[in-house]
Amino acid sequence: MDDDSRLAIHQVTFLPQWSFRESIEGLARHGVTCTAIWRDKLHEIGVGEGAMILADHGMKVTGLSVGGLATSPDPRAWQAAVDDTRRAIEEASRIGADHVVMLSGGLEAGSKDVSGARQRALEAVGRVVPDARASGVKLGLEPLHPMLCEKRAVLCTLKQANEWCELLDDDPAVGIVVDTYAVWWDPALEEEIAKAGPRICAFHVNDWLSDTRDLRLDRGMMGDGVIDIPWIRRAIERSGYWGPCEVEIFSERDWWRRDPDEVVRVIKERTRTHV
Amino acid sequence: MDDDSRLAIHQVTFLPQWSFRESIEGLARHGVTCTAIWRDKLHEIGVGEGAMILADHGMKVTGLSVGGLATSPDPRAWQAAVDDTRRAIEEASRIGADHVVMLSGGLEAGSKDVSGARQRALEAVGRVVPDARASGVKLGLEPLHPMLCEKRAVLCTLKQANEWCELLDDDPAVGIVVDTYAVWWDPALEEEIAKAGPRICAFHVNDWLSDTRDLRLDRGMMGDGVIDIPWIRRAIERSGYWGPCEVEIFSERDWWRRDPDEVVRVIKERTRTHV
Repeated sequence: MDDDSRLAIHQVTFLPQWSFRESIEGLARHGVTCTAIWRDKLHEIGVGEGAMILADHGMKVTGLSVGGLATSPDPRAWQAAVDDTRRAIEEASRIGADHVVMLSGGLEAGSKDVSGARQRALEAVGRVVPDARASGVKLGLEPLHPMLCEKRAVLCTLKQANEWCELLDDDPAVGIVVDTYAVWWDPALEEEIAKAGPRICAFHVNDWLSDTRDLRLDRGMMGDGVIDIPWIRRAIERSGYWGPCEVEIFSERDWWRRDPDEVVRVIKERTRTHV
Repeated sequence: MDDDSRLAIHQVTFLPQWSFRESIEGLARHGVTCTAIWRDKLHEIGVGEGAMILADHGMKVTGLSVGGLATSPDPRAWQAAVDDTRRAIEEASRIGADHVVMLSGGLEAGSKDVSGARQRALEAVGRVVPDARASGVKLGLEPLHPMLCEKRAVLCTLKQANEWCELLDDDPAVGIVVDTYAVWWDPALEEEIAKAGPRICAFHVNDWLSDTRDLRLDRGMMGDGVIDIPWIRRAIERSGYWGPCEVEIFSERDWWRRDPDEVVRVIKERTRTHV
């Protein structure tokens, strides 16, 4: 991708290296003007302080991660997740984020009821739609890779995300987050991206490593894996999305161990050559 | 499942512990009358000898694993995979197997062309359909879990397997292998099982472990994971399949390290309680 202005980098890419403030200062230093926020980091510094740091650096914010995770069959735990998502919406509004990244959540320990978990996760999204609408913050439904179905996301495919949007009457407050890592394998990818069209509110990029060692924390730098990222980007552009390309790399063995300034430099280079 | 006569156990479940002969003798000793065969093991002992051992023990054979793996963009490598699949069909015929388990294959090293790999894999299946028909052996298309898309199977979903069957004019020589591990997460599972109907030629059972450590070799014993196996079995029965329930566990850390007689005992028990 040759348009540097579309580059966004999620602060979770420097999870162990940089504090909230350091990540915003660091990105600004490298001329990156758009980021995504990890709630734990925001909470450490406080929402007011976080909002000020972002404003001081003229940093745009795509998503705030994460809301949702409301699959529990226990009504109190489910309600607590809904309440937490409402707080995420409010936080997103205060820091000027475009959307809350909504993970559906996985299976409760001991449960085998994927279908029930899906119903409850969808019900939770519907419950907070009015809050999102009132705050001018979108709910970005993000399907994760099916290998995370049990742990993090019973929402596994773009097709399912499209169906959820329809079930939510295509409320404009509900969008879809497309992550290359989550969807690259999907035989229905092109068709479902086309269907998603204007629902797409974010595009996350990173790569699938051939020697993947961990289901969640072993994502690769663009170009180090097997995903044809430009092909997915172009499909998304054909569907009408021309917003930020947001690099988000969970990498316990590699990128989380490197000098974060080096990581940003590599990301900028690889975005030009492999996104 | 309370019908012991439907139990089959794939000899790969004892890959490091039992030779070909030992696995057939072992299963027979425990009253198991149906198995599936791993080609490497068959080749070690020879097809003729293997067929005799099976016949001597009155052992029925579901699938012979594996054929296919024809995704290479190099025409010679692709042709070699087709030729090897023809040999698998002939071997399957000689040992009286119902089908060859057809894995599509993953991405060639360095390739990012999933779509091309899929075309070539499908083309290879079409190429050997006449051989299968002539030998009275089915080709069992087995989608694997999407996390194995890069390494082993660009055929990732039951929907895609159904589409391939249609593209192959629903030739009765082509069937579908449903493996609980590969499909449990799929939001379209029930619908696609119903569509598959009489195409289903095998049902593999094993479980998804909550602390999965390896993408390929860390499958769980039924009951140790999160898959609602009886729910999938009933869906498959509604679609008309009442054949063997075939236990197939690749387990580097656990079941491949245990006394195989103990493994068979546990399988028999868990089949009653968790299949």
